Amino acid sequence: MQLDNARVAIVGLGLMGGSLALALRGKRRSIIGFDRSPEIVEQALQRQVVDVATPDLAGVANADIVVLATPVRTIIELIPRVAALMRPGALLLDLGSTKGQIVEVMNRLPEGCVAVGGHPMCGKETSGLDNADAGLFQGARFALVPTERSTGEALSLATELAYAVGACPLVLDAYEHDQAVAVVSHLPYLLAASLALTEQEESAGNPAAGLLAASGFRDTTRLAGSGTEMMLDILLTNREAVEQALDIFEGKLAQVRGLLADKTGLQGWLQAAQVRRMEIFS
Amino acid sequence: MQLDNARVAIVGLGLMGGSLALALRGKRRSIIGFDRSPEIVEQALQRQVVDVATPDLAGVANADIVVLATPVRTIIELIPRVAALMRPGALLLDLGSTKGQIVEVMNRLPEGCVAVGGHPMCGKETSGLDNADAGLFQGARFALVPTERSTGEALSLATELAYAVGACPLVLDAYEHDQAVAVVSHLPYLLAASLALTEQEESAGNPAAGLLAASGFRDTTRLAGSGTEMMLDILLTNREAVEQALDIFEGKLAQVRGLLADKTGLQGWLQAAQVRRMEIFS
Repeated sequence: MQLDNARVAIVGLGLMGGSLALALRGKRRSIIGFDRSPEIVEQALQRQVVDVATPDLAGVANADIVVLATPVRTIIELIPRVAALMRPGALLLDLGSTKGQIVEVMNRLPEGCVAVGGHPMCGKETSGLDNADAGLFQGARFALVPTERSTGEALSLATELAYAVGACPLVLDAYEHDQAVAVVSHLPYLLAASLALTEQEESAGNPAAGLLAASGFRDTTRLAGSGTEMMLDILLTNREAVEQALDIFEGKLAQVRGLLADKTGLQGWLQAAQVRRMEIFS
Repeated sequence: MQLDNARVAIVGLGLMGGSLALALRGKRRSIIGFDRSPEIVEQALQRQVVDVATPDLAGVANADIVVLATPVRTIIELIPRVAALMRPGALLLDLGSTKGQIVEVMNRLPEGCVAVGGHPMCGKETSGLDNADAGLFQGARFALVPTERSTGEALSLATELAYAVGACPLVLDAYEHDQAVAVVSHLPYLLAASLALTEQEESAGNPAAGLLAASGFRDTTRLAGSGTEMMLDILLTNREAVEQALDIFEGKLAQVRGLLADKTGLQGWLQAAQVRRMEIFS
């Protein structure tokens, strides 16, 4: 199976599913979209995000690739249901932000099913089909996680799909993935949200806080605006790794707090953080 | 004294001082710039950031407004030295990011000196004259803090200067200012820096962390790239307020950590944070 000939089905036409459809459609593949919301189905057809849209999952039977693009806990529910409807040998791929529980469910699919875990490292703080964007995956890492139901051909096809939308595939295991995203994605979200609520508490007694908030505060809290339905599923399905990320972070914060009266120690610590920031984004 | 006729002196030609000169120069005022670095003096002249540039502070004697635009602890050292050189009645204004210690020093100036504390709420994560930008203050809040050496005329002139560079003046006292910026500026910086070092620790054992870092991580850590000389002074001169901001923040983080296994409680907390983020930046 080559991606060029593949019939692609996308389940969940939100930001990720809608953007995937738009990114693939540019290449004139036939795409069928599913969403439980009749309004979204209607909107997807009107905007020509997909060729066919329906709330009825039975249509996945004709697809060569089925991509699950809903929040994580819905993906977990859908995997066995959708796999049972698919033709033997077709590829089941998901775009969920945590991989441990999803891969476990994929591993338990009947033999003959073909499934790969996926997670494109991109997003916006605004969600929904309205914000879908054909360029969303451009330049993004696309994590691919093999399962006990992955074949070499399946991984090649998933890799081809990642490249086709402009992303850069990276194969790794579910544990590495979940620990990594806990640190670089879920922890930043919790910090942004906690910071927004800290400002709220300060502003209750000192309205100057909200008035003086500027670009630094705006950027540091950006992730607090993320869709809470999506983030709730992520946190509930990656709790252990998130707690470990919080442990490391709280250690660093305690470190700098202890240095607030130690000019030399503080300077060294701030410089180390600055160097690390520059190493990652240079 | 009207701003249009005023001779303006700027001490410290980094990002803030250089940007102020560029923003005022567009309006063809005569500006003299000071910097202890001969290279910066040379660069300021070549780029025509100021009309006259020199390392010799004696030149402030001719100015009607002297703006101190160095890191905070240098401002504190400069206030009595520069005030002693200024003509009686001329306005001393600073752009320091913390106000408590600066206002204390201004209060102790001899009677007849005129001084107002200032803090434009803008910046970049890149510092230095190279990054100076005439539009830096556009739309920014410009905190103005009266001192025991402030007159009504002095506050009017400082207000006029804030408007002249496109900023929006806000008069408040040093305590309100310092508590507010601890929450919306200094705390976000410490979170960004701690997050960068958390990623470094994770990546040492799991290189996927650095590889999967995307736009969310980039934005949440942006402030970690701030100039450490400037941030060191800020933290050292606002320690008490920063510790109080850390107290509130740690309370919020502990709250969400305790909710990671409580679906309903977690959802409510995430939604409250999202609502607050939208209230501030809508």
